[in-house]
Amino acid sequence: MLLGSCGNLKLQFAPFSSSLEAGFWHQLTQKKLSDYRLDESPKCIKGYYYNGDPDSLPTRLTLEFSAFDADGPTPARCCPAPGTLYNTNTLDAFKATDKKALLEKEAKEIWDAIQSGAALKKPSILSKFILLTFADLKKYHFYYWFCFPALCFPEGIKIIRPPVNLENVFSAVQIAALQEAYDGLCIKRRTTVAPYFIMKYTEDTVDLALLEDWETFFTDTKKVTVGVYDPCTLSQHPGWPLRNLLVLLAKQWGSKLDLVEVLCFRDRTLQGSRSIHHSLIFQIKLPELSMCPKSVGWEKNPKGAMGPRMVNLSECMDPKRLAESSVDLNLKLMRWRLVPSLELEKVVNTKCLLLGAGTLGCNVARTLMGWGVRHITFVDNAKISYSNPVRQPLYEFEDCLGGGKSKATAAVDRLTKIFPGVNAQGYNMSIPMPGHPVDFSQATLSQAQKDVQQLEKLISDHDVVFLLMDTRESRWLPTVIAASKRKLVMNAALGFDTFVVMRHGLKKPMTGSGTHVPGSSLFSNIPGHKLGCYFCNDVVAPGDSTRDRTLDQQCTVSRPGLAMIAGALAVELMISILQHSEGGYAVASSSDDRMNEPPTSLGLVPHQIRGFLSRFDNVLPASLAFDKCTACSPIVLDHYEKEGFIFLSKVFNSSHSFLEDLTGLTLLHQETQAAEKTDGETQGSENPDQSTSRCELYTYPY
Amino acid sequence: MLLGSCGNLKLQFAPFSSSLEAGFWHQLTQKKLSDYRLDESPKCIKGYYYNGDPDSLPTRLTLEFSAFDADGPTPARCCPAPGTLYNTNTLDAFKATDKKALLEKEAKEIWDAIQSGAALKKPSILSKFILLTFADLKKYHFYYWFCFPALCFPEGIKIIRPPVNLENVFSAVQIAALQEAYDGLCIKRRTTVAPYFIMKYTEDTVDLALLEDWETFFTDTKKVTVGVYDPCTLSQHPGWPLRNLLVLLAKQWGSKLDLVEVLCFRDRTLQGSRSIHHSLIFQIKLPELSMCPKSVGWEKNPKGAMGPRMVNLSECMDPKRLAESSVDLNLKLMRWRLVPSLELEKVVNTKCLLLGAGTLGCNVARTLMGWGVRHITFVDNAKISYSNPVRQPLYEFEDCLGGGKSKATAAVDRLTKIFPGVNAQGYNMSIPMPGHPVDFSQATLSQAQKDVQQLEKLISDHDVVFLLMDTRESRWLPTVIAASKRKLVMNAALGFDTFVVMRHGLKKPMTGSGTHVPGSSLFSNIPGHKLGCYFCNDVVAPGDSTRDRTLDQQCTVSRPGLAMIAGALAVELMISILQHSEGGYAVASSSDDRMNEPPTSLGLVPHQIRGFLSRFDNVLPASLAFDKCTACSPIVLDHYEKEGFIFLSKVFNSSHSFLEDLTGLTLLHQETQAAEKTDGETQGSENPDQSTSRCELYTYPY
Repeated sequence: MLLGSCGNLKLQFAPFSSSLEAGFWHQLTQKKLSDYRLDESPKCIKGYYYNGDPDSLPTRLTLEFSAFDADGPTPARCCPAPGTLYNTNTLDAFKATDKKALLEKEAKEIWDAIQSGAALKKPSILSKFILLTFADLKKYHFYYWFCFPALCFPEGIKIIRPPVNLENVFSAVQIAALQEAYDGLCIKRRTTVAPYFIMKYTEDTVDLALLEDWETFFTDTKKVTVGVYDPCTLSQHPGWPLRNLLVLLAKQWGSKLDLVEVLCFRDRTLQGSRSIHHSLIFQIKLPELSMCPKSVGWEKNPKGAMGPRMVNLSECMDPKRLAESSVDLNLKLMRWRLVPSLELEKVVNTKCLLLGAGTLGCNVARTLMGWGVRHITFVDNAKISYSNPVRQPLYEFEDCLGGGKSKATAAVDRLTKIFPGVNAQGYNMSIPMPGHPVDFSQATLSQAQKDVQQLEKLISDHDVVFLLMDTRESRWLPTVIAASKRKLVMNAALGFDTFVVMRHGLKKPMTGSGTHVPGSSLFSNIPGHKLGCYFCNDVVAPGDSTRDRTLDQQCTVSRPGLAMIAGALAVELMISILQHSEGGYAVASSSDDRMNEPPTSLGLVPHQIRGFLSRFDNVLPASLAFDKCTACSPIVLDHYEKEGFIFLSKVFNSSHSFLEDLTGLTLLHQETQAAEKTDGETQGSENPDQSTSRCELYTYPY
Repeated sequence: MLLGSCGNLKLQFAPFSSSLEAGFWHQLTQKKLSDYRLDESPKCIKGYYYNGDPDSLPTRLTLEFSAFDADGPTPARCCPAPGTLYNTNTLDAFKATDKKALLEKEAKEIWDAIQSGAALKKPSILSKFILLTFADLKKYHFYYWFCFPALCFPEGIKIIRPPVNLENVFSAVQIAALQEAYDGLCIKRRTTVAPYFIMKYTEDTVDLALLEDWETFFTDTKKVTVGVYDPCTLSQHPGWPLRNLLVLLAKQWGSKLDLVEVLCFRDRTLQGSRSIHHSLIFQIKLPELSMCPKSVGWEKNPKGAMGPRMVNLSECMDPKRLAESSVDLNLKLMRWRLVPSLELEKVVNTKCLLLGAGTLGCNVARTLMGWGVRHITFVDNAKISYSNPVRQPLYEFEDCLGGGKSKATAAVDRLTKIFPGVNAQGYNMSIPMPGHPVDFSQATLSQAQKDVQQLEKLISDHDVVFLLMDTRESRWLPTVIAASKRKLVMNAALGFDTFVVMRHGLKKPMTGSGTHVPGSSLFSNIPGHKLGCYFCNDVVAPGDSTRDRTLDQQCTVSRPGLAMIAGALAVELMISILQHSEGGYAVASSSDDRMNEPPTSLGLVPHQIRGFLSRFDNVLPASLAFDKCTACSPIVLDHYEKEGFIFLSKVFNSSHSFLEDLTGLTLLHQETQAAEKTDGETQGSENPDQSTSRCELYTYPY
């Protein structure tokens, strides 16, 4: 009768609903950025499901933070499900993915595991899933589509005895025995769940085993009972994990099985009391199966249609973390796509000291931010004036009010507003200068000493020092200190429509002046330690330094685009140098090297870039350090290192003749004059450019 | 007795106190910016003083807004004083000015006017002053020092009868008669004041005349009475204006004068009632004078020491006006100092339309602001994402929250924060693109039509159109519209470390294809109207366009400094073109022109700047418009102009073959392929570069 009452009732299964935690997307983002990058190959991931949900909850497969650790732990009493992640690089690829093929491929694998018997030993293979994703990491939009492949009996599965609650069939003793047997099985397998099991029972005993023990466990297979850890909460239907199990049974033992009794094991704790009474039990007749059956499994979207889902996490992810990973993304894209050898860590971890927070300083800071440099320190003693914001891109009109904010601190505030993850600091301080006496009083003298100490400490604490001031003389002290401390110095200076961007020569760790490197002539192949500094060379871009600087000495008059170009180039040159294995010691590239194989993945590492905006042209001169340089020559460094502030204060308090006498420039000048008088004409020189610049050197006021 | 009682009492004068209104500094700022510029030559200005102040006020000489209108009106009842402004260009020049020499020069002029008698006709010369200034227009600090030159009797002036109030000497009748006579004199002279006058009186009459009438007025000069419009309020001392008058008297009539009676005419209205009773009257004996006496007159500072004063007006001037004039100052300095022929008005008044407000758009806008361009309009349909602020310098972290602000409007907000005087607008709209169908529905079609109309209007309303998008196809429509409307197009596009910045060819007002200009070959001397557009040429910087653009199509991966350089160059190129007398029609400069005389005061006007950051190099190619160009060829423009949106919608809705068929590219392609097959090798070409780029042209997706 019972049999008859079922008629042609077919067993129906509650499909999985995917449940994705924000943590999963967070972790996918990280994986994408750090590991997967542009790799679209399938990845093993892991979800889990639970058989203790209260009624009315859907049959969920959950993926969270831990999903990427396929071999890691699963929450207690949850059943892990292995999955395959297909993460595409574009939305188009996501859409164009052949879902049917993907499903068939996965279903074939399940079928193969069933045929081979591998699924008996590792039944979790029966609950495999597919996750197809596209992560738009600019907008934090995540597109995804789950598939829970299920092999289907062509004509369905005939219900012999429809599902009822276990307590309708089992006695309390049996239920208790089942519970005890299940726990025993788990303990024996050192787990908290058994996704599938086989079962024998009498009126007061219950015996459980794993699928792999089938042959020894069942002596009579006319009627077998199988158990499934069932995530479904519906009272008339089993959940999805049963489907492939039944296919397995049909394939393995189908012809032998008259009747299969199924226990949908549900195990919940309500108000502190555990219950398995609501588990379902029913009986079915399995059809025969020979060839691989068809499969289904792509999840419907919330509208009930076949289609992907999208989740927009731009708002619920922590904005500051979002900003950080977004900034990282852009940088990593460069490496992934274009320059695989790019050593981003060298860039990101470089501590940059910016002396000057004006037009150049602002543009340099912005370019550094673009490169992901996190540690940026400003030194400036000026306040923001009304003419600044249109040319100094870290300031706004409001910063000018009330006498103007200090540039150094306002620049820090702005960087933090641009990117909260930045580590920026500002020092509103003066840099003592040659020829600008500090000995008016004990107070000014000790202030100058403090300023020198502060500057020395700052230069020690940073990796690269940018000279971005608007006067020549303020560059002297940091040039000397940085040369002494062997810090890479990037220097930028503007004329009206010309600029110079250069790296200072980086002295060898020991000031050994005798360490000549063979093969370096005056102008080619000059290694980094023999390159000149700003004071070894011509100073401001040619043709401008001699012009009228009236009305306001502090006001640099240049074509507005110039500072952006020079600031950007100063940073890009630094980046290229950082990518060179020898860093600041790298041989200087020259204009002639433009046609040669570049020394770094990013290109050339010139000594100087001299730009001419009126011709839209750059040249790349290189020049040797000058042994009479007023800043980086051995005699100056020697005095600085031995006498410290005593020497420096002499420089500050003296006219320029002090340094010229010290370095021998005075003598050179006298000799040159004498020679000119004798010759009656300008003395010929192998190196007219440099002699010109050196003449200019000591005619400049400092 | 009376005589004796005075003993050796010498006459003492109350010096002028300078009183400078903020309006004076405002006007000086304007004059400096518009007229004086770097001109330090002396300028005529005008102050005034008043003889009606209440007691206890100092003897003030006031300069206000009107001071620069030397011939303009003076406030009623105030006496004008002519002055000479020495405005220096630097603080150093201000300090270094030889004050003694300046005073002596001015005193000499007064003395000469006294000797010659010119001072009789024009006695205001006796109250001349000097104002030495330095205006720090970045900080709005004004340094100044007044001098009121007074010639001095070596031994002073002996008082015969000390000063007393007029009412102690004159009867009420006499006072009334004096007042009436004074008013009559003024009316006769059509003024409200008489700085100096001569006077005769009886017990009931008072007779006044001007100095120039001395000889006819005084018949007996044993004792004369002179009047002076006296700004002093002290009861025992006359004000400064009397000093040079007495020198004049001594020089002109000294030997004839036994006794001089002085009326310090003071004329105030208290509680509605006019009074001259408090005028002073006293008698003196003038010494003889032969040679030019010594002079004094530099004002003491508030501390009572000889020294200049400084006023800081940065806070009390209207900040927005301050910002505007500060921004102007920087620009004008360029003209004053370096490029006198720079036509700033052409720049400042150029209306710029920026299509794209991303990395390029932000940098272009900032450079335009630096150049003083006030009219900037953005078009963009994107929202600000977290990766933007470090590379797009108009946005900050906060702009990314809540899904991100619209770039177009956020960019406007930022420009206004940078410079409140800007006239910026933003349009959050899409630009329809070829191959991106718009005919899904009537709604999308009419939206596309609206977008086209809006874009057409925007392009009409602006002078220069910047193409700063991150896709090739979005540049097509504005290229077509701008070509049709003969608007100058500046185009910038980025690769990873290469960029192209170019101006599109500017078609002649009539689309006459037969107007060949002689002397232009394929690659040199190409006039502006024959230059190619973005679509006539190779597209993205070489070597990058073919690379992988996965992960996020919108994310332009480039070295961070690149957009700053390209954005700056796009603006600088525009500025140079604007300075050319032919503007967008100017013949394109090439790399070879770098050694020639530049065609504008700012330098070259190339067609394209192609930059290679890895080599720190730029080249300046120029190329002809392509008669099969998919954007600017006559056939495309013709269809657009005749069919309008109907033609455009065909382009939007069709594959690229539509435009290729229309322009003849398809045929060209077929012929090329056929020729290659026939030849069995790549066909030779006079112009390999261009044929390559044209092959690339129609393999690009758009």
